[in-house]
Amino acid sequence: MEDPAFETALNELQTDRVRGASELARRCLGLLAWSAQVAPASESSELLGVLACRCDRLIAARPSMAPIQNLLTAWRSSLTRLDGLSLPVLRSAAADQARDGIRQSKQAMVTTVENAAEFIGSGKTVITHSLSSTVLAVFKRLKDRNIRAIATESRPLNEGDNLARQLSDWDISTQLITDAQLGLFVAKADLALLGADSLLPDGSLVNKSGSYLLALAAHDCGVPLYVCCESFKRRKAGIGQLELEEMEARELGAPSLPGVRVRNIYFDITPARLIDRWIDEAGVHATGILSEGTQRIASQ
Amino acid sequence: MEDPAFETALNELQTDRVRGASELARRCLGLLAWSAQVAPASESSELLGVLACRCDRLIAARPSMAPIQNLLTAWRSSLTRLDGLSLPVLRSAAADQARDGIRQSKQAMVTTVENAAEFIGSGKTVITHSLSSTVLAVFKRLKDRNIRAIATESRPLNEGDNLARQLSDWDISTQLITDAQLGLFVAKADLALLGADSLLPDGSLVNKSGSYLLALAAHDCGVPLYVCCESFKRRKAGIGQLELEEMEARELGAPSLPGVRVRNIYFDITPARLIDRWIDEAGVHATGILSEGTQRIASQ
Repeated sequence: MEDPAFETALNELQTDRVRGASELARRCLGLLAWSAQVAPASESSELLGVLACRCDRLIAARPSMAPIQNLLTAWRSSLTRLDGLSLPVLRSAAADQARDGIRQSKQAMVTTVENAAEFIGSGKTVITHSLSSTVLAVFKRLKDRNIRAIATESRPLNEGDNLARQLSDWDISTQLITDAQLGLFVAKADLALLGADSLLPDGSLVNKSGSYLLALAAHDCGVPLYVCCESFKRRKAGIGQLELEEMEARELGAPSLPGVRVRNIYFDITPARLIDRWIDEAGVHATGILSEGTQRIASQ
Repeated sequence: MEDPAFETALNELQTDRVRGASELARRCLGLLAWSAQVAPASESSELLGVLACRCDRLIAARPSMAPIQNLLTAWRSSLTRLDGLSLPVLRSAAADQARDGIRQSKQAMVTTVENAAEFIGSGKTVITHSLSSTVLAVFKRLKDRNIRAIATESRPLNEGDNLARQLSDWDISTQLITDAQLGLFVAKADLALLGADSLLPDGSLVNKSGSYLLALAAHDCGVPLYVCCESFKRRKAGIGQLELEEMEARELGAPSLPGVRVRNIYFDITPARLIDRWIDEAGVHATGILSEGTQRIASQ
């Protein structure tokens, strides 16, 4: 029997193009905590079945989003440890585990931002591409430490304009450029900083299209590139399928012409060899390969 | 005594943001041919002085445009060979020399396009950036030879939309992308083809911002990059000053925000090491250094 409220939430998750993967993962956990408390079930084993099924459906809804894969898979595993509890105790324990996941995700982001801000330090000019909530939080943390920004508009939807608006509110001196000017301006920066949609097992970066171009230009100009994201964004080998999502062509506002196909792929892949530092909640890493320490944090 | 018609034309030359450098150079030569015939002068030496002065003012009006430097300097040198002619014969000869320059410039472009089309051959997918009249002519020449295009929109003014419109008219199958997607699509092309605003003495390319990013991505993906421009676009060492022109910020359509400076530099520089072939009217070259043969053609 389907629950209309759950189905609505699942559908919203599937079509959300605004929120980042980590925020959506926390929403999924919130939905599972709610399910643990109110999903119809007459005994514990039935509830466990319902929760596992809902968890799997949420994971399948956004197969390319690593935080959803990671946090929900961990939660699903934790359910097995609750076998044998009475129904009311199970409801409460499963909901608590989901809320723990939410707390872990938030704390990982906060610590990642602290680590990045500490590593970058005072008085730096930072070039970035697109609008990452993690990168935005790093700017906020360094706003009284004379940080300056070079931001791209980030076509097609120009979320870079929103980044510039926020930086302006914080009195951070900013240059706003077209994506095409990345090669001209990267040499004026002390470092390039990117968030992540996800990281591949070898440390390669999946992020907004144009990130690869910034990485190439930074590498060519000797400007270091740091990627800053909590370890929940790491895709484990063999889990989920990497899908570089293509959005609607009309976002470009290009003319409709016979024989001309307008393309709008949102993400590109930056090879690990172009990245100088990976910053996560465990610290600053010179390699993008998943270390044991990072693994532990991601799956604890 | 200033000539109002000449002053108007000079002003138009200074503010023209639409025409390419070669076309403007031919307009300058047309203006000098007209000056040779009608500029007030009572004797030959006076006319030579007037023409030299006008030529210098045209050169100074667009110091960053190599074809204007090259074609007008060559014409100015040719005037010295006309010393001693009677005024009517001088008028006619100086005008003929200017028209010769126009013919040479046009012929050089036509031959360059032929050389490029021949070298590229049939059935290729060509990625390009911005709208170059030379590259457009290459597409036209190959339109019945199963050429396919990947074109960038080219912010801020999206002249790539006009390229796509022309390619659509010629039934050339085209993919139109944001500049930020260059790194995603370059690997789908057989080659990258760029025109030039100008070439530096070492073969480096001055062209629309984003060209350097295309070159980096092509190099990284093993896709060859050809630059296609007549040798009149070569900047001679020590002549004129390289100026990467910055246009009005409002072209970006970005919000006006305190502390945020919107930048709009039109050209970037692609190092010669990222270019695989230079194609001009003399042929296809594996080096960007000005060869003696090319020099001869440019200054003959």
